[in-house]
Amino acid sequence: MSRAEIAAVNRQFEDAARQGDLDRLASLYTHDAVALPPDGPVVKGRENIKQMWGSIAQQIGLKEVRLSTLDFEQAGDTGYEVGEASLAVSSGTAVVKFVVVWKKEDGQWRLHRDIWNTKGT
Amino acid sequence: MSRAEIAAVNRQFEDAARQGDLDRLASLYTHDAVALPPDGPVVKGRENIKQMWGSIAQQIGLKEVRLSTLDFEQAGDTGYEVGEASLAVSSGTAVVKFVVVWKKEDGQWRLHRDIWNTKGT
Repeated sequence: MSRAEIAAVNRQFEDAARQGDLDRLASLYTHDAVALPPDGPVVKGRENIKQMWGSIAQQIGLKEVRLSTLDFEQAGDTGYEVGEASLAVSSGTAVVKFVVVWKKEDGQWRLHRDIWNTKGT
Repeated sequence: MSRAEIAAVNRQFEDAARQGDLDRLASLYTHDAVALPPDGPVVKGRENIKQMWGSIAQQIGLKEVRLSTLDFEQAGDTGYEVGEASLAVSSGTAVVKFVVVWKKEDGQWRLHRDIWNTKGT
């Protein structure tokens, strides 16, 4: 059940990224979420995460994100996902792998911790 | 309480890394742990994680690791940590940030999901 709910949020994430809707993208994170993008400092809170995505999207020319879940386990109102993301960017396609810690906030699953790195060749 | 237990395992991790004891390092992971090193594929299981650390240690000339926990939250027998690691390597010092999902296995906290990336400048 939770896995389906997580998948639904991931589809919303993809939609928001495709539309460049940073407010919607940020709203999928918990209020006190933490993101750990490669080659940068830890980013804390929804507002800073919104700005982070704006910078990243502009920097790499982000057109589309496709998320696939490799593994999901739930522990109460927390869950953790291992997955891969394929990004359509101005230079072609980039593939990253990620771990997301999910948390149920106000009855909805939200990204609470989000970290990724390159998959390499 | 759990945070202190996690800290104790992190000290064991540092000791094992300093001594180049790959068996001990691998034993701090759950049996079905998953590690996601930058620039490589997903690594599944304790034996493969042991080999991964052997490769990484050789590649970067790993001498020492120092782990610091920035944030830890627990949900039952699972916990998740955000932290930074300072690595003494042949070329100097490298700083990475990480997310570890911890799981209690046979009464002991073990690394269950481990992903990191560079902190940048």
